[in-house]
Amino acid sequence: MSIRGPILLVHGFFHGAWSWGDVPLELAARGVASVAVDMPGHGLQAQRPVSSTARPFDPEAISSEPSPIKDVDLEVAATALIEQVRRVGRGSAVTVVAHSMSGPVLTLAAEREPGLFAHLVYLAAYMPASDTPCIAYLETPEAEGQRFTELLVADPMAVGALRIDPDDDTGRDAARTAFYGDVPPETAQAAIALLGTDAPTAMAVGTTTLTGGGWGSVPRSYLLCRQDQTVPPALQRLFISQADAAFPDTKTRVIELDSSHSPFLSMPGELADVLAELV
Amino acid sequence: MSIRGPILLVHGFFHGAWSWGDVPLELAARGVASVAVDMPGHGLQAQRPVSSTARPFDPEAISSEPSPIKDVDLEVAATALIEQVRRVGRGSAVTVVAHSMSGPVLTLAAEREPGLFAHLVYLAAYMPASDTPCIAYLETPEAEGQRFTELLVADPMAVGALRIDPDDDTGRDAARTAFYGDVPPETAQAAIALLGTDAPTAMAVGTTTLTGGGWGSVPRSYLLCRQDQTVPPALQRLFISQADAAFPDTKTRVIELDSSHSPFLSMPGELADVLAELV
Repeated sequence: MSIRGPILLVHGFFHGAWSWGDVPLELAARGVASVAVDMPGHGLQAQRPVSSTARPFDPEAISSEPSPIKDVDLEVAATALIEQVRRVGRGSAVTVVAHSMSGPVLTLAAEREPGLFAHLVYLAAYMPASDTPCIAYLETPEAEGQRFTELLVADPMAVGALRIDPDDDTGRDAARTAFYGDVPPETAQAAIALLGTDAPTAMAVGTTTLTGGGWGSVPRSYLLCRQDQTVPPALQRLFISQADAAFPDTKTRVIELDSSHSPFLSMPGELADVLAELV
Repeated sequence: MSIRGPILLVHGFFHGAWSWGDVPLELAARGVASVAVDMPGHGLQAQRPVSSTARPFDPEAISSEPSPIKDVDLEVAATALIEQVRRVGRGSAVTVVAHSMSGPVLTLAAEREPGLFAHLVYLAAYMPASDTPCIAYLETPEAEGQRFTELLVADPMAVGALRIDPDDDTGRDAARTAFYGDVPPETAQAAIALLGTDAPTAMAVGTTTLTGGGWGSVPRSYLLCRQDQTVPPALQRLFISQADAAFPDTKTRVIELDSSHSPFLSMPGELADVLAELV
């Protein structure tokens, strides 16, 4: 037996390799191998503030405890991704699918080592313009209506992390709204139980200088999620138009999904159809 | 690009597809594709008792609340596994690696549909003899010294689940001892944060009648973990000797790892070396 690939799947903030759910199986059923990995500070590399599981629970403490992962920046995450791509590729260029806040990590990694990447696939992802921090996009009119910031239980600049509290009823409801609008309720609940608490602010404020010989030279696609309440569709379109204006010779291929921020949980088969087509 | 496989990776009680950590990447780096899946009642199909995250926390409630996954039995889990193997195999037989309490699921699935399976790989797994429930092995002298039952916070027969409380300091320490003895402390802590609370008692009391034309006809290997404190080495050897006595024509190939119950977290590279050799 043999199979095409592998492609690499990279999750967003608070999530882990686990978030791809049935996608690796659906891809394999279509003859495509994949490897889902954890970003530094996430999944099996996550670290939680002590206050998040303290009994009795203290809301003051969770809003002020410094994050154990505050030093994870774009540099750390991109270095890890480059190493993963090298190992999985065994001398060939690799297609990487980046969800949400792994977008800027893929961008920096591809700017550094464009030859390692066959195709960049941004899935409801931040795809920031040159020298622009992701966090700046939250102030744009295109970000209006996003429900993500309602999740935060601490000041990201003070604790060094975007911090959520998914063990709390309010936190659970907010996560369901922002991330999992069209996901079956039991699956959403299981996903919420697997979420980390902290995602590094350093990754949201970091920037990459994009060049035509670097990031701009690699074919890219954008999978736009039309019901997304974390990265609103208007913001996804802004990323695409900025990229195409800066690098008109390699236009973004755009494919739309009628999904929330998490098509890997709400429509894994359709997502696998699209990805299998791109490889 | 193309790659051998895929093989299927199935986790044990309380864990999910996430537990394989770096193994899929390490396998891909060795030219082997893999797909890690969630068992019913686990990972993205997990359900927790409400009492497990209630604030304030009530120890009485967690010891008596009926399990939301009490109906997941060997039948349900084996049916799901057969479907996964069929889809991933696309007409070819598949090698499946079963950790811990996914062992009896693999056994029932292979007894039912031996033609779908290329090779059965039991990793520190329950590999029960014909008509023998896994739970019965806890009463054997070979199970002496196991540290797993210290984790339980409710009567498995009363609530329908083996229930653990990994949000509690005592529960965390017990999980580290039973599951993750040789795992780096930060990785163990991240894994504990991802554990489910409930594993179905029905799976532990279920049995399979083994036949020479069914389970006994498929090549099998056993990866024995010598420092295991959940399934002690003596118990792993008992499974092997019972299987070889019942089916002497297909002896178990035995490979030893000097690891705890979780070599996927403590020695993913060595585990991938062994698995790549078997495929």
